[in-house]
Amino acid sequence: MEQPTVTHDDFLGGQLRLTQPRHGFRAGIDAVLLAAACPAKAGESVLELGCGVGTALLCVGRRVEGLDLTGIEVQADYAALARANAATNGIDATIVTADLTALPADLRQRQFHHVIMNPPYYERASSTPAQDSGRDRALAGAQMSDWIGMGARRLRPKGSLTLIQRITRLPEVLAAATGQIGSISVLPLAARAGRAPDLFLMRGIKGGRAAFRLLAPRVLHHGDRHQQTADYAPEIEMVLRHGGALHWDSIPADM
Amino acid sequence: MEQPTVTHDDFLGGQLRLTQPRHGFRAGIDAVLLAAACPAKAGESVLELGCGVGTALLCVGRRVEGLDLTGIEVQADYAALARANAATNGIDATIVTADLTALPADLRQRQFHHVIMNPPYYERASSTPAQDSGRDRALAGAQMSDWIGMGARRLRPKGSLTLIQRITRLPEVLAAATGQIGSISVLPLAARAGRAPDLFLMRGIKGGRAAFRLLAPRVLHHGDRHQQTADYAPEIEMVLRHGGALHWDSIPADM
Repeated sequence: MEQPTVTHDDFLGGQLRLTQPRHGFRAGIDAVLLAAACPAKAGESVLELGCGVGTALLCVGRRVEGLDLTGIEVQADYAALARANAATNGIDATIVTADLTALPADLRQRQFHHVIMNPPYYERASSTPAQDSGRDRALAGAQMSDWIGMGARRLRPKGSLTLIQRITRLPEVLAAATGQIGSISVLPLAARAGRAPDLFLMRGIKGGRAAFRLLAPRVLHHGDRHQQTADYAPEIEMVLRHGGALHWDSIPADM
Repeated sequence: MEQPTVTHDDFLGGQLRLTQPRHGFRAGIDAVLLAAACPAKAGESVLELGCGVGTALLCVGRRVEGLDLTGIEVQADYAALARANAATNGIDATIVTADLTALPADLRQRQFHHVIMNPPYYERASSTPAQDSGRDRALAGAQMSDWIGMGARRLRPKGSLTLIQRITRLPEVLAAATGQIGSISVLPLAARAGRAPDLFLMRGIKGGRAAFRLLAPRVLHHGDRHQQTADYAPEIEMVLRHGGALHWDSIPADM
């Protein structure tokens, strides 16, 4: 029996069911954490650059009612899956097949309340060509400054840009963000307490003038590596399994 | 009775006694933490850019035997105090009065095992002129890229550059360091567990090719803000009161 080329996966404890390619870019907790960190409120607009099969965009749409959702995806097959995933889950979202460095004119004239992005993890100095052509395509494209610059330009004044990325790229992300977006804060994400963080979320505000802030790391798992079970911290469990928001500045006292 | 214009202050639990101006730049725990993070070993050479009255340079010299110590200080009065402080404490150190962007030829031909620096905290966008003329002079000078670029050029291959700075300047420091120094790692310093860090130490290695690392924050004080006493964490107590080293990657298990 031939193996199907797509899989159907549950996110947010089954609140969202997504079809995605079996091979190539597959959504993990990064996209869910990114969505949870987007401070969108009902009635606002959200743009995702590089939305893939729509994981982060649809997670935001599931959490917050009445959003105006737009996703940009350069690969037509991923964009088609994103459209199908939106429809299957009953979430209105406009998915545009376009390179983020060459957006259609109507999108270039729009400004959004919020922009989210999870730029591909690619380090030219150390990477070898990937096997999957979809991955090749995604990797070969825009630079970090293109991603953040385009995101910032598509924001309204005081709009938020939220990004998730590997910690090794923090210098590159900060260099790309400086001058394009203000009031930058970085939330490191550590697997366990006391460990060096592997990932970070960055938030910037268009036109913001606050000083840069590095927040205390948010710990994903309770306990240390010797435990058998992967116990998510209560806030992270709320995010991943119940579609909750990630609190930017500190965890509420009742968690 | 006229107030003396200098003070005599104990550092490292009295192992070092320093004369410094009553007003203007005064050494705090920053300089001591910077010195504690410098991985110098006996017989190696250490250069401090902007050594002030010599606090960090002499703390390193007190901790490690037989170092070849050089400090650069643009302000002649601070440089004179640094020379006097070295002599008083019985530590050999060469203090050169010079602007770091215009070092004497003999220094420009030297390469050191380690460079340390605590560039002045100055944010042009938000600062107003300081009252003290010494402070004015220090603030008006070199840019962050000058500091880090000069530090990197004065290093031997595989030499270390260590810097301490306010967290608000992390983007500026990383931008200045990128391409000048490799294997950059950042150690955030938080007043208390769970708090956003206020300061950070950065270490880079000349010619290093390791990926950027953000380490778990090092906590300076035990307990929360409700405690009456300022209890330093054991490692920090060792650094500040007993002249110990700051361990870069993790705290030894017996602390």
